[in-house]
Amino acid sequence: MTQAQIGVTGLAVMGANLARNLARHGHVVAVHNRSLSRTTKLVEEHGDEGTFLACETPEEFVAALERPRRVLIMVKAGAPTDAVIEEFAPLLEPGDMLVDGGNAHFLDTRRREAALRERGIHFVGTGVSGGEEGALLGPSIMPGGSKESYAALGPLLEDISAKVDGVPCCTHIGPDGAGHFVKMVHNGIEYADMQLIAEAYDLLRHGTGLDPARLADVFDEWNRGELSSYLIEITAEVLRQVDASTGRPLVDVIADRAEQKGTGRWTVQIALDLGVPVSGIAEAVFARSVSGHVELREAARGLPGPSGVTDKALGEEFVEDVRRALYASKIIAYAQGFDQIRAGSAEYGWDVDPGALATIWRGGCIIRAVFLDRIREAYEEETPPVTLLTAPLFVEALGLAQDSWRRVVAKAAELGIPVPGFSTALAYYDSLRAERLPAALIQGQRDFFGAHTYRRTDREGSFHTLWSGDRSEVGA
Amino acid sequence: MTQAQIGVTGLAVMGANLARNLARHGHVVAVHNRSLSRTTKLVEEHGDEGTFLACETPEEFVAALERPRRVLIMVKAGAPTDAVIEEFAPLLEPGDMLVDGGNAHFLDTRRREAALRERGIHFVGTGVSGGEEGALLGPSIMPGGSKESYAALGPLLEDISAKVDGVPCCTHIGPDGAGHFVKMVHNGIEYADMQLIAEAYDLLRHGTGLDPARLADVFDEWNRGELSSYLIEITAEVLRQVDASTGRPLVDVIADRAEQKGTGRWTVQIALDLGVPVSGIAEAVFARSVSGHVELREAARGLPGPSGVTDKALGEEFVEDVRRALYASKIIAYAQGFDQIRAGSAEYGWDVDPGALATIWRGGCIIRAVFLDRIREAYEEETPPVTLLTAPLFVEALGLAQDSWRRVVAKAAELGIPVPGFSTALAYYDSLRAERLPAALIQGQRDFFGAHTYRRTDREGSFHTLWSGDRSEVGA
Repeated sequence: MTQAQIGVTGLAVMGANLARNLARHGHVVAVHNRSLSRTTKLVEEHGDEGTFLACETPEEFVAALERPRRVLIMVKAGAPTDAVIEEFAPLLEPGDMLVDGGNAHFLDTRRREAALRERGIHFVGTGVSGGEEGALLGPSIMPGGSKESYAALGPLLEDISAKVDGVPCCTHIGPDGAGHFVKMVHNGIEYADMQLIAEAYDLLRHGTGLDPARLADVFDEWNRGELSSYLIEITAEVLRQVDASTGRPLVDVIADRAEQKGTGRWTVQIALDLGVPVSGIAEAVFARSVSGHVELREAARGLPGPSGVTDKALGEEFVEDVRRALYASKIIAYAQGFDQIRAGSAEYGWDVDPGALATIWRGGCIIRAVFLDRIREAYEEETPPVTLLTAPLFVEALGLAQDSWRRVVAKAAELGIPVPGFSTALAYYDSLRAERLPAALIQGQRDFFGAHTYRRTDREGSFHTLWSGDRSEVGA
Repeated sequence: MTQAQIGVTGLAVMGANLARNLARHGHVVAVHNRSLSRTTKLVEEHGDEGTFLACETPEEFVAALERPRRVLIMVKAGAPTDAVIEEFAPLLEPGDMLVDGGNAHFLDTRRREAALRERGIHFVGTGVSGGEEGALLGPSIMPGGSKESYAALGPLLEDISAKVDGVPCCTHIGPDGAGHFVKMVHNGIEYADMQLIAEAYDLLRHGTGLDPARLADVFDEWNRGELSSYLIEITAEVLRQVDASTGRPLVDVIADRAEQKGTGRWTVQIALDLGVPVSGIAEAVFARSVSGHVELREAARGLPGPSGVTDKALGEEFVEDVRRALYASKIIAYAQGFDQIRAGSAEYGWDVDPGALATIWRGGCIIRAVFLDRIREAYEEETPPVTLLTAPLFVEALGLAQDSWRRVVAKAAELGIPVPGFSTALAYYDSLRAERLPAALIQGQRDFFGAHTYRRTDREGSFHTLWSGDRSEVGA
């Protein structure tokens, strides 16, 4: 009997497409779904793409797999994942692998990995980015879990991943929750990137008065330079799209309420726990949230705006200013995301290689871009930078961009165009390079009202001023 | 034998001061501490302030209380609180009250309240704001828990709370975790307020070149107007303080790394779960975090700043611009905080009265200010506003402030002064009043890469464009 190299359970679009991708690459794939109809449909419609073993029951499915078994779970994150694990784990043997390719929270992945390790089963939480199309044609894959499991699983995953310059967009990220953690931050970065592009569009629309079709040309042009990326490319596509029923630009017909699924929010929540200031991601999450607060926006629509300003009057220089401001802000957002990955890696002992990560994000995933090659290069330097901001090539880029960046943030304030992403990025940049921050005043206030003490610039120790006493200073 | 009206267990500074405050108001107070020395010390040093019953064991302590018993727990939040609850609960009877006055997470309070309710005991999680001095002289008190418990406990708490115009700064907030929830948001707002003041100081210092002593005068002056508040008052005090050992302004000697304890972070994490954009609080938390990243700041110090700008050259008009920008930004930060309270109240069914909350924050607590009276007034209108921003008096204030606000944010960008708080507040303001947001483009992008669908402005339903097909639109 033919044995399958891998099995996929859960055949909604993502699962089905990954199964097809595996089969197209010559692997024998066992397929299973809670309801048989999806399994049947997959084999009927795509059976000619490779060898599928359609299995009706978990027992049949497990029996169809060569050992050690590789079971890829593609079900909804949360309780359904736990249910499927409990269904399959008892059927497996020590050394077998359960791979969760959903968008699980990495803390769930850590819990599951620890529990299954005790039962001798390798649990591999893996990020899969690139959406439905990526799953079929080559996603970016971020598997966590043991090295042993990667040895058995990596070749298959690398095989079906996207390739850039012949290099697969898949690598072993690190133990237990590392894969899902970096996927979470990837999504957070994606939120920030999209928000920044949206602000650039809004600035150009209000600042220059160019219509969406003309702005599509601008983004197309940008896509030929340092901003070249999938997101810029599809921005041009969306802006060029005309709505058939109204004849208007589609972007003017789409309701301006952005939705979200949760990984952006998780990224910020975890960053807060880790003490990493991911303000670019946070502002992107908040901006989506603001857009969805219909009642609040309705009530606030009449609030006074800037008086005596002329919009739609800016020219070519402004377009170039916005381009540079976008690039600078993007550097900040990615630097913050990579800082979070470094902090998470340190906190959980994962030893994540940021350069390898940048390498596998160059293709397959939503944030794929030429830019990731720059990040890879930055981390390949002999002395990798503390933060991406201080990598020589980004220092140079920020230096070139910053006057434009400042003009754009100033102009947005003046014109009343909301740029939470651009301005938080600039504030972060100016905070980091500041000789002194007014945090000293905050420490003084905290000492005043709560005796929280402060440190001094000129000697070690903690100090407290007797504010309600004679105002002398005491050691604490 | 004399019976105590209330007992306090945990006699570190906060607990001891609350016990003294109760005794000074003529209540007989049983006092207990894990180690007897603190109990003895309290009675020895402050026994003349009222009637304390010093108790060595929990049994003795509980026996000293009149029924229903009122036990105020003042220990470290987290596991120590659970330990004390488990020590005392078995000694109590149905109808007795356990009051947690620490900074507990409201979800812990909900858990504890539910568990103790089953045992017939009222658990009251209460926020206590005002620091050590407030605890002694009159704090702002925010008790959650059952109405029944407030009937028995409220009069005592109101008695020892701060008073403004004769009104106690204490009211029943709502069931279970409501008290600790609003205390958490109070602290988040405090973070935002402090950050905004710090930015105002930084802007004035770099923009005008005035020294801290002169800036203390500016803050004193501000304290006589609409910004009048405890935090502005102590800012002047801190800025005027001269360091004895160096002869320099103390604010220049304090290390510029702000610390934090966690309630600011919690506020943002919970706001993200509730979908409330509290960007002002988030930026304040991040700003503290940035200031503490010594290694990052060290590496980034050489990053290029604005070229060809002259700082320390701005005059009186800039001072007034900053004052107005501070007031406008403060309105935003408080509006966001109150939005979070409204959302939390709706989520957990607490029915929190925002006007009552503003009333009890007018005195005793760190954010006490004339401004809270304006908020109270806004919520007392016949039709309370959806958001504070749209209350007539704030609309007027924002209208008066906004040109200044825009100039300040623009000038900060130009001069390279980081103003994350000012600029996120302005971006939020401009987002809310925007006719259209570029969220529409984000929805277009999401539909393009993930078939996430979008809504239309002109008809109901969800739609998807066949981006990789003929680009027609289909209903979803």
